[in-house]
Amino acid sequence: MSPTCTADVRESEPLSPVFRPAHAGDLGALLALIADDTLGKNREFNAANPGYLKAFEAISADPNQQLLVAELDGRTIGMAQLSFIPGLSRGGAWRCNVEAVRIASDVRGQGFGAQLMRACEARARERGCSLLQLTSDASRVDAHRFYRGLGYVDSHIGFKKQVSY
Amino acid sequence: MSPTCTADVRESEPLSPVFRPAHAGDLGALLALIADDTLGKNREFNAANPGYLKAFEAISADPNQQLLVAELDGRTIGMAQLSFIPGLSRGGAWRCNVEAVRIASDVRGQGFGAQLMRACEARARERGCSLLQLTSDASRVDAHRFYRGLGYVDSHIGFKKQVSY
Repeated sequence: MSPTCTADVRESEPLSPVFRPAHAGDLGALLALIADDTLGKNREFNAANPGYLKAFEAISADPNQQLLVAELDGRTIGMAQLSFIPGLSRGGAWRCNVEAVRIASDVRGQGFGAQLMRACEARARERGCSLLQLTSDASRVDAHRFYRGLGYVDSHIGFKKQVSY
Repeated sequence: MSPTCTADVRESEPLSPVFRPAHAGDLGALLALIADDTLGKNREFNAANPGYLKAFEAISADPNQQLLVAELDGRTIGMAQLSFIPGLSRGGAWRCNVEAVRIASDVRGQGFGAQLMRACEARARERGCSLLQLTSDASRVDAHRFYRGLGYVDSHIGFKKQVSY
């Protein structure tokens, strides 16, 4: 009997983005991702706004913030911002708050979002977090299905209040 | 005609707590507040757990965290934790994430919670935040009414994922 050759039946490797911290050169691509969104397109206006660079610098300067980029073949196709928050509840547990989760609209449906969320989870664990949390606009029903599929529980109501200062 | 004497009809001043940053001496009182709660009593066990002091120190060391205490006649009756988070969305806006909002059960219903939330909002504005956000367990229907009454909009679903590390 000849041995089974597993190499012959191996399927082609699925595409996998590289996940890495954002650097200043990513800013334009990140803003494009934020605007490339049903809700974001109505509230993001001018990429030349100096507020964006200032915000990027504030994120980079804070060791408890991590702006994660998904790069595929040299292109920035996704992002997420992680905030590592120490707290007294649950025995003094750290939690990871996830904001600004985006995958470019032309590459959705290929599993990159799930890979991005797994990358977030890995970084949260590395930083000693025992809880990840995020909120999703009530209108994003596809996103809700997506998060539930990744083991997130929709146990909470998310409240927001816009203020001026 | 004699002048109206407003002093005679003035009502007594309502009690108002002092709001201040927590210091190490508050830790015991803060843990009691966290445990004095329908959900917290089931997940907070041992105040001697060194994880609590470590968490308190991590909060104090992070300039983007603020643990706010409500003190009334020398007693710690409330708390809230503010996290100031820089972000790229909404023109590079800072947001204030509010966690661990508590008022001691024996002094509820006297407006201290609303005063606490207004103190949170004032500090968020001072720090340049244009958005406050918080999540509330879906079972806390009284809390939802309370937040809506303060101008918070329940526009989001709050997802959590517990992980081990």
